[in-house]
Amino acid sequence: MKILGIAPGYARLGYGFIEARGGKFSLMEYGTVDTASGMAMPERLKLLYSRLMELIYEFGPDVAAIEELFFNNNAKTALLVGQARGAAILACVNSGIGIYEYTPLQIKQGLTGYGRADKNQMQLMVKTLLGIKETPKPDDAADALAAAICHANSANCLGRIDAALRAGGMPQRRG
Amino acid sequence: MKILGIAPGYARLGYGFIEARGGKFSLMEYGTVDTASGMAMPERLKLLYSRLMELIYEFGPDVAAIEELFFNNNAKTALLVGQARGAAILACVNSGIGIYEYTPLQIKQGLTGYGRADKNQMQLMVKTLLGIKETPKPDDAADALAAAICHANSANCLGRIDAALRAGGMPQRRG
Repeated sequence: MKILGIAPGYARLGYGFIEARGGKFSLMEYGTVDTASGMAMPERLKLLYSRLMELIYEFGPDVAAIEELFFNNNAKTALLVGQARGAAILACVNSGIGIYEYTPLQIKQGLTGYGRADKNQMQLMVKTLLGIKETPKPDDAADALAAAICHANSANCLGRIDAALRAGGMPQRRG
Repeated sequence: MKILGIAPGYARLGYGFIEARGGKFSLMEYGTVDTASGMAMPERLKLLYSRLMELIYEFGPDVAAIEELFFNNNAKTALLVGQARGAAILACVNSGIGIYEYTPLQIKQGLTGYGRADKNQMQLMVKTLLGIKETPKPDDAADALAAAICHANSANCLGRIDAALRAGGMPQRRG
């Protein structure tokens, strides 16, 4: 299964593509889509949308995982990031791929089993799980890869449960 | 000039099309795009986007005017409405039409010359300026028409200034 992870933002949107097979992950691509601060918002949204569409076409993910951000009482920033998030979600659904949302807490727990992991611990897990030597940069790209891995882990569990149900029940411990 | 006005929202998005010619306005169409509360957000955004694209194709506006909303410290709502706003902006830019933003204060001033006009006064102005007998319902559709009229009034002024500049200076009072 190929998964696109997205860390949304209107000035910089992080993306990362991974392939998950048999509980192992491999890195396909990662990077950011940057929009210049002088650009009008409609043009920024158009750029985010069209660049993501191109990337989805190029790398053919089966599904996308997007970080769900919170803004403590900063409604103005939330509205702007919400617009970028809407553009990213639309690029996925208009490309025919499903999209799942994960909170930062879920992503941390999905990668480290620990909801209070710091940025360095998270980046170390991303490197380890993808079997790469360099820490993906910038941070937004690493965040996007973390979201993709989180979904792979969730989907893995869901897949196991589905398989167990199809086989007539949950797997039983033996011995 | 044909203008599409938009009052953004994820559960209900108001739209209104008007034609402005020689300082007079005529109503083309208005309504809302409603998304069911049980729908997942990606599907809601897809519906808002695709329905707006259809309407733009059908009514052929030259430009769009969108209400710029504020959320006092409600960052969660702002993020959700921001997503719907992003979908509406993308439908416009991907259809090749420019989009302008107006705050509620600008819209009120643009219609009534008075920033503290209440809802009834606004709706009365919309009816009067469009020469229609019934108040457009629901409120979101009336808000969208108000945004469109506000842009027509602004564009009218800008048009006059442009024309004056092209003619070699600002118009002078005679007599």
